[in-house]
Amino acid sequence: SWRQTYRLASSYEHETFVGPDERLDALQALGPSWKEVPDKDAIEKTFHFSDFSAAWGFMSRAALAAEKMNHHPEWFNVYGTVRVTLTTHKEGGVTWKDVKLARAMDTYEKESNPTIH
Amino acid sequence: SWRQTYRLASSYEHETFVGPDERLDALQALGPSWKEVPDKDAIEKTFHFSDFSAAWGFMSRAALAAEKMNHHPEWFNVYGTVRVTLTTHKEGGVTWKDVKLARAMDTYEKESNPTIH
Amino acid sequence: SWRQTYRLASSYEHETFVGPDERLDALQALGPSWKEVPDKDAIEKTFHFSDFSAAWGFMSRAALAAEKMNHHPEWFNVYGTVRVTLTTHKEGGVTWKDVKLARAMDTYEKESNPTIH
Amino acid sequence: SWRQTYRLASSYEHETFVGPDERLDALQALGPSWKEVPDKDAIEKTFHFSDFSAAWGFMSRAALAAEKMNHHPEWFNVYGTVRVTLTTHKEGGVTWKDVKLARAMDTYEKESNPTIH
Repeated sequence: SWRQTYRLASSYEHETFVGPDERLDALQALGPSWKEVPDKDAIEKTFHFSDFSAAWGFMSRAALAAEKMNHHPEWFNVYGTVRVTLTTHKEGGVTWKDVKLARAMDTYEKESNPTIH
Repeated sequence: SWRQTYRLASSYEHETFVGPDERLDALQALGPSWKEVPDKDAIEKTFHFSDFSAAWGFMSRAALAAEKMNHHPEWFNVYGTVRVTLTTHKEGGVTWKDVKLARAMDTYEKESNPTIH
Repeated sequence: SWRQTYRLASSYEHETFVGPDERLDALQALGPSWKEVPDKDAIEKTFHFSDFSAAWGFMSRAALAAEKMNHHPEWFNVYGTVRVTLTTHKEGGVTWKDVKLARAMDTYEKESNPTIH
Repeated sequence: SWRQTYRLASSYEHETFVGPDERLDALQALGPSWKEVPDKDAIEKTFHFSDFSAAWGFMSRAALAAEKMNHHPEWFNVYGTVRVTLTTHKEGGVTWKDVKLARAMDTYEKESNPTIH
C-alpha cells in the first residue's frame, strides 16, 4: 500500500526501531523468506546458491553494502549456503537499517540466480 | 563442431599452447567478445556491469577461479568496467588455461546480468 | 618433533583421517587457539580483528585457499569476529585437509595483525 | 606541520580540489610512494605483495573503503602487483577524497606486510 511504501521511504535513512505495528508491513515488504527470529528481536533468512563461488560472489557484494551502511550482518556460511541474521545491536532490535540491508541482499540474490527467477 | 569440443576437452587440463590452427576454434568457442591483442600473444575482453558492486561480485568469483587454477589474469577495473587480458607468462602465449579461465569469467558475467541474457 | 613434522608433511596432500593418536600432534602443531569441538568431530577457532574491514580481508584470503583446496569452512562472522569450524564432511571427521586450511588461516591472521605479533 | 595537518583534517570530508599550493603538502603527507601522473591530473602508486592472495586481501579491503566513500579507484592487478590511479572524475582532478582513499590503502598495505614494517 502507499502507506507502507511511504513509511519505508521515510524511515530508511534513520536508525529508527521497527515498531510492533510496522513489523508486519516490513516483513511483508521483504517477502516470505525473511522470518522473525523466535528468541531475539532479529530477522533471519537462509540463502541457497549452487556452490561456494556463487555464495561468495553474493557475500562480496553484501559486504560492500554492509560497510557502506556501517551496519554489519551476523552471517554463517558453508559452501553454497549463507544464513543471515540482522538486528541493530545498539538499538537492541530490528530497525529500518536492517530492512534496507535485507532488501539489498535480496537484490544480489536475484542477480546471482538468473535461471530460477 | 565435435572436433572443436573434443580438442577443448582434451586440452583443458594441460598448459598446452593454443597453436595457430586452433586459435580460431578457441576464439569461436569463446564468442565474439574476446579478441586477440594486436601487439602480444594474449586475448582480451572488456566486461561492463551496472556499478562497482556488480563488477566486484564478478571479480570476487573470478579471483577464486584464478587462484584455483593457479593462473591469474591481468585485469584493470574502474567502477563497473573490468578489462581482462589473459596470457600464460611462462609459456609466452595463449594456452588452454587461458581459454578455461575466459570461459569461467563468461559464466560469471552471465550469472551477474540476468536481465540482459 | 621430527616425527610430527614428517607425519604432517606426508599426510597433507591426502584426505586422510587424523587418527586418535595423531590428533594431539595435529592440535599442538596448530597452537592453543584451535580446539576440538565437544559434540562433533571437528576443530574450531575464533579469530578477532579490529573491525569488519580487517576481518573481511582475512576472509577473502581464506576463501581463495578454501576454493583452491576444494575444502570449505563452516564460518560465522559478525563485525571483527570470525568463528571457523573445520571438518571433512564426506569423511565424517577431521582430516589433514582441515589441518592444512587451519594453518593457512593462522598465516593470514598473523599477516593481518602486525602490531600484536 | 600543524598547518598541513589542519588543512588535511578540515578538507577530508569534502570533495574539494587540491590546489597547486596544497599539492606538495598532500603528496608529502602520503609519502614518497605516491606520484603525480605526468599526463593527467591524478596520483598513482604501485603496490607489491608476495602473491595473489596477499594482493587480493588488500584489494578486498580497499574495495570496502572505496564503496563506503562512493569513490572508486582505477586499478590494475596482475598476481602480487596492484597499480592504483586516483582522480575525481567529476571534478577533473585530484581532490581530498583521493588523498583520503590513498591513505586508507597505505594503511591496508602496512597491515598486510608485517615482516617489512
